[in-house]
Amino acid sequence: MKSVTENHRSIRKYAFRTVEDAVILKIVNAAIRASNTGNMQLYSIVLSTQPKIKDLLLPLHFNQPMVKQAPLVFTFCADINRFSKWCKVRGTEPCYDNFLWFSTALVDTMLAAENAAIAAEENGLGICFLGTTMYNAEEIAKVLNLPMGVVPVVTMTAGYPNEELSPTERLPYQAVFHMETYHNYSDEDIEKYYSDFENLPKLRDIVEQNGLKNLAEVFTQRRYTKNDGEIFSKKYLNFVKKSFKISE
Amino acid sequence: MKSVTENHRSIRKYAFRTVEDAVILKIVNAAIRASNTGNMQLYSIVLSTQPKIKDLLLPLHFNQPMVKQAPLVFTFCADINRFSKWCKVRGTEPCYDNFLWFSTALVDTMLAAENAAIAAEENGLGICFLGTTMYNAEEIAKVLNLPMGVVPVVTMTAGYPNEELSPTERLPYQAVFHMETYHNYSDEDIEKYYSDFENLPKLRDIVEQNGLKNLAEVFTQRRYTKNDGEIFSKKYLNFVKKSFKISE
Repeated sequence: MKSVTENHRSIRKYAFRTVEDAVILKIVNAAIRASNTGNMQLYSIVLSTQPKIKDLLLPLHFNQPMVKQAPLVFTFCADINRFSKWCKVRGTEPCYDNFLWFSTALVDTMLAAENAAIAAEENGLGICFLGTTMYNAEEIAKVLNLPMGVVPVVTMTAGYPNEELSPTERLPYQAVFHMETYHNYSDEDIEKYYSDFENLPKLRDIVEQNGLKNLAEVFTQRRYTKNDGEIFSKKYLNFVKKSFKISE
Repeated sequence: MKSVTENHRSIRKYAFRTVEDAVILKIVNAAIRASNTGNMQLYSIVLSTQPKIKDLLLPLHFNQPMVKQAPLVFTFCADINRFSKWCKVRGTEPCYDNFLWFSTALVDTMLAAENAAIAAEENGLGICFLGTTMYNAEEIAKVLNLPMGVVPVVTMTAGYPNEELSPTERLPYQAVFHMETYHNYSDEDIEKYYSDFENLPKLRDIVEQNGLKNLAEVFTQRRYTKNDGEIFSKKYLNFVKKSFKISE
């Protein structure tokens, strides 16, 4: 049996075809069936389909065309707002606005998000996760009307696929898997685990096109630079701090 | 077709039966097939099976018996250590030790973890996620030999199940799902979404056994109190800060 988990490719081109409400419902119901902490369900799922909302989201995701082209744009959010309101309505003071609960809500959010992704793929859709959600979280929160206590974590575009792809290459499983305890990596280990990956023709091409020495430089000097990281990290932290006490 | 995502129950009692290596391999390979940021795979999976290691982990998970009884104890960790080492071996300076990358690594870790959970369940195993990993992350890191840059996020026990359970009740999907933008909750919404849940006989029993007024108080006054939250939040933050610059 081929597992649904082996079947993932990030699909960025979508057919001009509406996704049925029944499929959307399956995705949402799959999300809420995921494990979560204490059954508190500290997340919310916002599904945007209207062009006027997707148009506002598009530049916040650095104009990645999937945001406009995909029929479904799910924003998965860590959410202590709903649970806290429930506590207050029931006359007891909520206390889930610290770093532990930010991390916990993020865990719950992602368990739900991956279940949603798998249900989408099981139903014939293609999906793509966008990590850019954290980069412009505050602006995205404004577009989506998120109140205090709700922090966007990740976005998933989905629709019927209009491209066929092979799964993306990964490091050999031994590179990320440790028996009993962690075995730290020697320089030789790094060589062993990364060299096949680095030698993939399409990755060698990227290095060459960028005029760089190797793939690691593509990451540090092009894709995810120190400067960008510092700017967006500060920005995300400042936004998260409005809902969670992060630095104490 | 019934989706694998609808099938989850947290299994806490395991049969006395070894899990085949082929099944373990399927779980790990499912984990690495999950989406992740920039294909950086910022996680590590530590599988502990030996009694001497599980015995050390047991008290750190507040003696939850699954840690000892389950044949497989997976600790999923956010990991910038391996990627950073690769950068250094390739002569370029890594820059992924900030809040953004902590959150990103956590996202990647959880996408992998949920894929692992689904693959385990597809192969007949039962699993249970333990949120206690964050509570004693530093001590768990010591047991598992985690170096700087590796932060335990969540633990998953797994094995062939020795109990049959129905799925846990969740809030109705409408409670966590928002069309187009977020619709904040009125007191009436909270009532509508939570009252069926609160009236489940087993949850009413818990309220009564605790001598409390309602289920919300069970959370704030018993399960996840302000005092515990503050202690463990500070503890986790202090540990995470050894690997990531969180407060800047």
